[in-house]
Amino acid sequence: MKNNVPEILTIPALKAGYEHKAFTPEDVLSAILSRVEAHKDNPIWITPPEEKWITIYLRRLPPMDFSKYPLWGIPFAIKDNIDLEGIPTTAACPSYSYTPGKSAFVIDRLIKAGAIPLGKTNLDQFATGLVGTRSPYGEVQNAWQPECISGGSSSGSAVSVALGQAAFSLGTDTAGSGRVPAMLNTLIGYKPPIGAWSSAGVVPACQSLDCVTVFAHSLEEVEIVDQVARALDPVCVWSRDLPLKVKRLPAKILLPKDMPTFYGPWAENYQIKWMHALRLLEQSGSKIECIDTSFFSKAASLLYDGAYVAERWADLGEFVTAHEEDIFPVTKNILKSGGREALSAARLFKDFHQLSIYRKQANQLLENAVLVLPTAGGSFTRDEVRENPVETNSQMGLYTNHCNLLDLAAIAIPENSEDHDHPFGITCFSLHDQEQFIRALAGEFLKANGAEKGE
Amino acid sequence: MKNNVPEILTIPALKAGYEHKAFTPEDVLSAILSRVEAHKDNPIWITPPEEKWITIYLRRLPPMDFSKYPLWGIPFAIKDNIDLEGIPTTAACPSYSYTPGKSAFVIDRLIKAGAIPLGKTNLDQFATGLVGTRSPYGEVQNAWQPECISGGSSSGSAVSVALGQAAFSLGTDTAGSGRVPAMLNTLIGYKPPIGAWSSAGVVPACQSLDCVTVFAHSLEEVEIVDQVARALDPVCVWSRDLPLKVKRLPAKILLPKDMPTFYGPWAENYQIKWMHALRLLEQSGSKIECIDTSFFSKAASLLYDGAYVAERWADLGEFVTAHEEDIFPVTKNILKSGGREALSAARLFKDFHQLSIYRKQANQLLENAVLVLPTAGGSFTRDEVRENPVETNSQMGLYTNHCNLLDLAAIAIPENSEDHDHPFGITCFSLHDQEQFIRALAGEFLKANGAEKGE
Repeated sequence: MKNNVPEILTIPALKAGYEHKAFTPEDVLSAILSRVEAHKDNPIWITPPEEKWITIYLRRLPPMDFSKYPLWGIPFAIKDNIDLEGIPTTAACPSYSYTPGKSAFVIDRLIKAGAIPLGKTNLDQFATGLVGTRSPYGEVQNAWQPECISGGSSSGSAVSVALGQAAFSLGTDTAGSGRVPAMLNTLIGYKPPIGAWSSAGVVPACQSLDCVTVFAHSLEEVEIVDQVARALDPVCVWSRDLPLKVKRLPAKILLPKDMPTFYGPWAENYQIKWMHALRLLEQSGSKIECIDTSFFSKAASLLYDGAYVAERWADLGEFVTAHEEDIFPVTKNILKSGGREALSAARLFKDFHQLSIYRKQANQLLENAVLVLPTAGGSFTRDEVRENPVETNSQMGLYTNHCNLLDLAAIAIPENSEDHDHPFGITCFSLHDQEQFIRALAGEFLKANGAEKGE
Repeated sequence: MKNNVPEILTIPALKAGYEHKAFTPEDVLSAILSRVEAHKDNPIWITPPEEKWITIYLRRLPPMDFSKYPLWGIPFAIKDNIDLEGIPTTAACPSYSYTPGKSAFVIDRLIKAGAIPLGKTNLDQFATGLVGTRSPYGEVQNAWQPECISGGSSSGSAVSVALGQAAFSLGTDTAGSGRVPAMLNTLIGYKPPIGAWSSAGVVPACQSLDCVTVFAHSLEEVEIVDQVARALDPVCVWSRDLPLKVKRLPAKILLPKDMPTFYGPWAENYQIKWMHALRLLEQSGSKIECIDTSFFSKAASLLYDGAYVAERWADLGEFVTAHEEDIFPVTKNILKSGGREALSAARLFKDFHQLSIYRKQANQLLENAVLVLPTAGGSFTRDEVRENPVETNSQMGLYTNHCNLLDLAAIAIPENSEDHDHPFGITCFSLHDQEQFIRALAGEFLKANGAEKGE
């Protein structure tokens, strides 16, 4: 511990430290800069924290008042596909880089609430990937096992929080990028419903599905950040007014009736951890119903196997065509598949119509219910992903890809937040306007988890 | 008047007649059959009313009780792209014909409320058109000027009501088919927001935009039918829960700042009638704001000039390919343009993203406001349409095509319900969840209209 700054940065710990004058935001920044330096072999950051410009934000801080500025002096990391005024946005593609004249809507709200932006984190290029290795800036190493993947695409954002380099961080999530890295680095990953947080100022992946997300150590912190970030944006076309309801447990928990597929070198461990998670879930007291989840997989397949990949091409095709040599090879293949001739508008409408049927089914199934799935069914070494980049990535999305297509909200939580040996986690899914259920259930799960450890 | 049955069939007149035993539903049917016979040169019907099967519905009627059965004994016509159990649905394409085993969700609700289905009306084939002449069953003649178009695609449905052959009728509306024929035959045409009425059991045109609509003589009748038809359908994927709010006038009426384009041989008359409509609107007392409406035209252009036409191809392409010779020539060209190779999925996503921007703008502009436009800016003779089928049709949609793309509700009302000389009308548009404003404003307009006549 340097300057009394805790190794793990959390909002409550920082707040307590500031209030008791144990340390100042300057001390916290100084500790962070040391930690960043200590981990500089892990390419967590694309634009790492630098005292010279962060100081400007520190100087602008109003007098400490957590009732007015709930994130006063709280340092956070930003995935490098979200704009921060005056700092390049690269989306992990150097030739795509631009320097935005203003911050993304969500970033702006966080800063106004007192939060201190630290820098821009590494990601799977164009937020396309779930592994954290698809970046010309280097493969982000898992916080606990450097030979293993960090998960992606919000790789750097997750690892920075796990390693005490930020109190929370923003990611984005189209197919699971706000959840998989949470699991692999033992964090909470909250993916708001589409539009609950503005996506203005975010590099589009599939813009109709893209969500800004948060990584933090606790549900409480997620909720503090959510209260600041959630707002109707008059500019963002995907923004929706989605006020939260009072938290309460759902009438039922939906679980897959068949054993989920676990994969990779530690598949057996993951299965054991899943069984443990189920035992903890039972303690919530909600009725458990086992269902056929194959329909979620079918919906998920529309994201990459259908015409949806053309949404990436609609926004990035022109750039990709002009800069083929600058695109990460596996990413280029995915993006280009969205522009292939066989993908007709009529085919896309057929997919939309099919998706509408799935959405209707999901609405009926998830009414007053929470679906719980493994966040991911395994993990891989970085070597394994490099050898087999497409298939390993697909497996990482087995339980995530359906989420945004079906307009769900999700919270990924660790099965055991102290487990640094191939950590596992579960994700709670609700309808976009029924988040009260996942918040309550995730809270109960974490409480049961703590009770088990005698906390 | 035969059997005391009024020439114009309205719900209040029929109800009064039934309650005072002036006539029975059988008498009404008998009068209708005579009228259908008298107008048999006008191809209003594809499956005309026939005593033998309508009698079944009459026999099934419960004892008269309008509080329980608000449409008790009320005869209605059904556009022939909406299913009625046991009667062929043709969509005006004989080789497409099938006989449904059950009625459309909306039809079922109307029948359960006591309404009597009369038969299936002619339409522009596959509901593609705004003229009423694009049918192998013949060109539907305008109710008042046989040489003129009836408007489409819900041609037969509108004319049947105008000529006293039904008390109300159902149409459908994707681009304006529930509004243009209302104007040309001096009726009210109500187009609910997408999903307020189920579209299950309707032949798809652009299924994500298709709405079932109603034609009637008064706003009061539209509201009675709406109360029965409006319901969340557990099966229809487009169905939405859209409860009505208490009617009240909007804070403002939005009007085009430039003189709308009037066209066709009677363009000057239409312009005069529009000026008269504006004077009546002023009497509502709502603030009038003149705006640039070019953005609505741009949104409208996405329907046929963009990739949206591929939605028609997604549902009908297979049939069209297999039955090219059976498709009405101009309709075939439109449908086939939806399947052309240049229409890529990426292009469609670009259109969607553009449309999202327009929807956002419309949401901001129409908050607590009603947009008023001419329902159509003119009319044509049937000869003129035959000579120039594409351009005349496009002109008829100048003020209608934006509506469903922007997720609006609409009520088309006559400028003067007694005007049978190229009748004109205006349409009031609101956001999908703010129908209280168009209902109130349409009511005020009709009241001002009546007052002017000394009613």
